[in-house]
Amino acid sequence: MKIAVLGTGMVGQALAGRLTELGHDVTVGTRDVATTMARTEPDGMGNPPYRDWATAHPAVTLATFAQAAADAELIVNATSGDVSLPALEAAGRDNLAGKVLLDIANPLDFSQGFPPSLFVKDTDSLGEQIQAAFPDLKVVKSLNTMNALLMVNPGRLAGGEHSVFVSGNDAAAKKTVTALLESFGHTDVIDLGDITTARGTELLLPIWLRLYGALGTPMFQFRIVR
Amino acid sequence: MKIAVLGTGMVGQALAGRLTELGHDVTVGTRDVATTMARTEPDGMGNPPYRDWATAHPAVTLATFAQAAADAELIVNATSGDVSLPALEAAGRDNLAGKVLLDIANPLDFSQGFPPSLFVKDTDSLGEQIQAAFPDLKVVKSLNTMNALLMVNPGRLAGGEHSVFVSGNDAAAKKTVTALLESFGHTDVIDLGDITTARGTELLLPIWLRLYGALGTPMFQFRIVR
Repeated sequence: MKIAVLGTGMVGQALAGRLTELGHDVTVGTRDVATTMARTEPDGMGNPPYRDWATAHPAVTLATFAQAAADAELIVNATSGDVSLPALEAAGRDNLAGKVLLDIANPLDFSQGFPPSLFVKDTDSLGEQIQAAFPDLKVVKSLNTMNALLMVNPGRLAGGEHSVFVSGNDAAAKKTVTALLESFGHTDVIDLGDITTARGTELLLPIWLRLYGALGTPMFQFRIVR
Repeated sequence: MKIAVLGTGMVGQALAGRLTELGHDVTVGTRDVATTMARTEPDGMGNPPYRDWATAHPAVTLATFAQAAADAELIVNATSGDVSLPALEAAGRDNLAGKVLLDIANPLDFSQGFPPSLFVKDTDSLGEQIQAAFPDLKVVKSLNTMNALLMVNPGRLAGGEHSVFVSGNDAAAKKTVTALLESFGHTDVIDLGDITTARGTELLLPIWLRLYGALGTPMFQFRIVR
């Protein structure tokens, strides 16, 4: 499948790398290609610059948000939550219309330091804001409840015996995303319902952050036992 | 142990019944004993009136919040989140001072219908509000992330192979609560840290409510796989 991954950070790299490994034709989208490739310093979280990752992944093309989205059948929103709406605006409404958007972003607000709080709470969600802003996009919220390494290689932890959620208004789009998640190795994909259920998964971040602190590792996962 | 359970609803009944079964001396606290015993209709959720439960549990005494708290070594807050602070105020500061409070309440706001939203979000929590209002109380937030039946009988689901969280500022109080949880059958008690980590567990409610909708049963649990 032709897939655009919007966002050049850890999450975008993890998705783009794994999708390429699985045989997809992946283009990573960024605001400005030259600026992204000119960065030689690690980001604020200590992750290496994109161009180091790109060197190790020659099959992945870097393009503008609009170029990446134009040819894609499926688009992954792996941008920071606070810039997701402008990034999608830059991708262009015509390039998005009718397509599936796998939305991984979280509405994290780091303005008061760590742990971040959320800039959308439980009466709205970033997933809903994106769906409302781009009614022609088929938004499916998923994967935002775990570390990037586990998103794409769930089998690295407990043989993949943990849960991932999907929220969205379009049944066929959720089916497409579910198949993609299963191809990554996810064994328990729970369909929570329409895009408003993204309120539930986005609000898992506060406990995720505290568990990260308490357990001292991001390599943990939620399993819904039933 | 002499334990006061504040609140006569489903959660209070579940806790009081199980604690009695385990040999504790339990008094249930309510605002007005006569009013509680006069109720003959099911509550808004269809649960039978307290007096039916009381008939089946003759060992459990019903008293005012203040009477129940006065003699207790440990106090359980099983009131609705929106009345927790006034209920504790009614219990009396002197009756609470220096004691452990196991806080199970959730800050649910049903004013806009179902599913409820939260009246405290991720920059504060009900647990913290109680701790701030009653500095002499040793507040431990726990059990608020699951159905009442699973709180007290976790072994009913998957042999108890799921997780429960504790948040609180006092290490000895968390130890007391952890021992109580283990006596119920909990096998994985995760200490998240101080009382501010209650923000994480209270914000599990939004996804709990959506999972309840998607799975069609409240008999599920979070397990932290690591």
